[in-house]
This record gives sequence, structure tokens and C-alpha cells, in this order.
Amino acid sequence: MDYSNMKPYDVRKIIRQGKISTPTAGMCSGYAQANLVVLPKELAYDFLLFTQRNPKACPLIEVGDVGERKLKYLGEDIDIAKDIPKYRIYEEGILTGEYTDIEKFWRDDFVSFLIGCSFSFEADLIKAKVPVRHIEENTNVPMFVTNIECTPAGIFNGKMVVSMRPLPYDKIVKAVLVSGEIPKVHGAPIHIGDPKVIGIKDISRPDFGDAVTIKENEVPVFWACGVTPQAVVMNVKPKIVITHSPGHMLITDIKNIDLKY
Amino acid sequence: MDYSNMKPYDVRKIIRQGKISTPTAGMCSGYAQANLVVLPKELAYDFLLFTQRNPKACPLIEVGDVGERKLKYLGEDIDIAKDIPKYRIYEEGILTGEYTDIEKFWRDDFVSFLIGCSFSFEADLIKAKVPVRHIEENTNVPMFVTNIECTPAGIFNGKMVVSMRPLPYDKIVKAVLVSGEIPKVHGAPIHIGDPKVIGIKDISRPDFGDAVTIKENEVPVFWACGVTPQAVVMNVKPKIVITHSPGHMLITDIKNIDLKY
Repeated sequence: MDYSNMKPYDVRKIIRQGKISTPTAGMCSGYAQANLVVLPKELAYDFLLFTQRNPKACPLIEVGDVGERKLKYLGEDIDIAKDIPKYRIYEEGILTGEYTDIEKFWRDDFVSFLIGCSFSFEADLIKAKVPVRHIEENTNVPMFVTNIECTPAGIFNGKMVVSMRPLPYDKIVKAVLVSGEIPKVHGAPIHIGDPKVIGIKDISRPDFGDAVTIKENEVPVFWACGVTPQAVVMNVKPKIVITHSPGHMLITDIKNIDLKY
Repeated sequence: MDYSNMKPYDVRKIIRQGKISTPTAGMCSGYAQANLVVLPKELAYDFLLFTQRNPKACPLIEVGDVGERKLKYLGEDIDIAKDIPKYRIYEEGILTGEYTDIEKFWRDDFVSFLIGCSFSFEADLIKAKVPVRHIEENTNVPMFVTNIECTPAGIFNGKMVVSMRPLPYDKIVKAVLVSGEIPKVHGAPIHIGDPKVIGIKDISRPDFGDAVTIKENEVPVFWACGVTPQAVVMNVKPKIVITHSPGHMLITDIKNIDLKY
């Protein structure tokens, strides 16, 4: 099946039937995808405040009502407990299982947080002829834990996670401007150049995702990453947290361009 | 005293001493000012979510920790219970008093919400030679309750309040672009032209603030307004809410230009 030209609504229905459990990169071209964090209500205020204080790493695009599996703004007939291809459940910071459906775990006090995803600005980078190496090499984007402290909020605190894309010198300014136009999907880079400045010791060994080729005369460029909230939530070790499985995102009905304004 | 060229820290100290109880428009040129809403913690999650769902009307620039009078990000040594020239206390939706200091009313469960203020983009409009009529006429900006429903969150719901600035045709595009660059102070207009389209029956009778002259060949241009959260809070009639008194803002150490990025 070619999912790239299908409508999000139709692909979500196939996902809901359990017929897709692969990463969603490349599906429904032009539409925004989203990271998921589900927490019990007692932690929701602190986490919502954490996203407000760390908007580059945690650009919220929707928050569900308490106990509500339907979303209201990101798309038609979304069931957040079924419409993502793969979920992870963490209990006290430990990954205890991966599931294609979390209906049987759903609770009346759960709150869903949907966070913008860099897939959206990568589409714009490619249109602007800025190379995106992990897409060229068909792997996951390399991600690193930095020494940059997130601004704490209540119980939540931890280091910012960044994604890295190596760029030739003559594409850096364009990449800053293009990604800077979409603050709802992490916006402009947070660092350009020497990885050590932000506490990354070995650029060839990412903490998450895959290493990519950095060619001669290319500079690593770092963006705040949607894995930050997951890393922070794991740092805090709450009794239960549900997230999407990396790369297995919610495909929304919102076009990338609509996130700009 | 000429407060326009003083540093925010110094002016806040004079305010704290009770020596300024006037509106803050024009003070500390180049620095951002902020709207205040103080609510008990039990309402804070719903209100925080309301601001997330209504970012044009409620662009949050800081949220205090529970019970905390000191702010961390908007400036040095800010005491939110003393550093605003005039406060209003509303009990069950009714204005029960105005005070120059709310120390004696402060509670351990209070949370402060600071919201961006249009003073910041007006400074940029003036630099871009876009006329700002209420400043020319030395009155308050005219504000109107519209028929635009805010996106509800928990107990909070109500209509969006807008501010209006009349513009000659050849300044409208510039005003959209200049204000659109600062989403943290309401961003681009939400409506240009016929007031009836957004439910305003009589443009000469604002619901808040003062009427201003609309010259021949000028068009009313409407921006989401920081009075919206106050109007919504009043609509919901919580037991107690404290706000700044209109026009009597918190003067922050953040420069207007820093709100852009």
C-alpha cells in the first residue's frame, strides 16, 4: 500500500483495525504528525506547566479533556487509545510493554498531550532543497541528551533531548529560517556546530535513533526534540505513563502549513 | 518623574513603595509589560489549559509556582503581590475592591498567570510608522466583546475580547506583518473591517476602554485582547480572582524584541 498520498482519516482507520504497526514517517504527505504523552490527571498540571515553560522541546498542539479518548482539534473521529500504530507503557520509569491498542489500559483520569513533530519541518526543508540525511539514508533521526537543563515545573525536570541533522555550510541559514517559521514543531535550531558546547561527547553515538553520515565540510545542526518530554517523564518515574512508540506517530488532519499561523 | 527612560527594576521598586498608582503605559520604553490573573490552584489546571487552547487571546509569558510571589523569568526580584500599581479583587464575579498591594490577601494556594500585552506590538507599530490612534488621542484602547467563542477548557468559557485600532488602507498590511511577528503579545489581527462580522454592533461604543476617532477611509482592525481571560474568569464567577487593574501592568525586564524569538 502507498500510504503517502492517502488521507489521514483513512490511514487512521486502517491503524485502528490493527493493520499498520510500522513507523508512520512518509505517510499522508503534507499532514502533521504528533508525539503522544498520556498521564494521570494528578500529574497533568505539572506537565502542562512544563510544556509552557519549555515550548521549543514541547510544542503542544492539543491537550485532551480528562478521561477523553476523542480529540477535538487535530482531526475527525480520532480515538487516541487506538489510532497510533504502536504504544509504549512505562511503569515507574520502566518500559513494561508495547501495544498496538491501549483501550484496555485506559482510565477515566488519563489526559493526552499531543506534541508537534519534526516531520513537519523536514517536509519544508526538503522543499527548500536542504538535505535531510536520515531521510536520505532511510534511518531514524539521531537524537542526543544534552547538558541543557529544561526549565523545571512541579515534579518534572531533566535535560533537553535534541535531534541532529548535518548540513553543508551553504544550507545552514536557510534551514534556520525555514524551521524557524514553524515554532509549533520545535522551530529554529537550538545549536549550530561543536557538539561539546551542549554536552554531546560523541556525535557518532546517538542516545536514541541512528547515527548518520556527516560529510566533509558539513556542520551538525541541533533542534529541540519531541523525545524530551518522554525522557523527562522517565526521569521522574511516575507510576504510569503511556507514549507512542518512537516513530509511530499520530497522523493528524492538520496540514503542516496550518501549524505556521 | 520621567519613567519612560528608567529601568524596569527601578520603576518596580517605586511601585512597591506605593508611590506610583497610575497606568503604566509609556513607562520603561522598550520593555514588555504583562497582564495578571491570580487564581487558586484548584482552578489553575483549567485556566492553564484555557490559555493553551486560546493562545492568541491568552499568550502566557510566565506562570508562577503554587503559592509563590516571586517570579523567575520575567525579571529580577519581582514580588507579584506588590509590584503592580493597582490590583482588582473579584469575588464570585463581582469587583469587591481595588488595592495597590495584595500582600494581605495572598494565599499559599495562589497561582499567578502573566499574559503578554499589546503595548509591546504598539511600540513596533509606531516604529513602522503605523498610527496608533488611542496613543495619539491619549486614551485607553477601545475593547469589544465579540461573538467569537473561545475554545472552552474545563470550567472556563466565554467570548473573545478584542482591541481595535483604526488604520488607513495603506497601513493595514504593514500592521498585520509587524504584529504577526510577535505571537507572544497576541500576534496578527483576528479581523480586518466590518465590525458586524465579529458581532460588534456599534463601533463607537466600546465595552471597555475609550472610543477613538475613525477617520474617513480608515478601516477598524481588531486584535485578540488580554482582557479576554479576565472577561472569561468573570463569566465563570470563581470565589476569588485577582487581576491587575486595566492599564496598570507588570513592567518586566524582558525587552519587546526578546518576545519575538
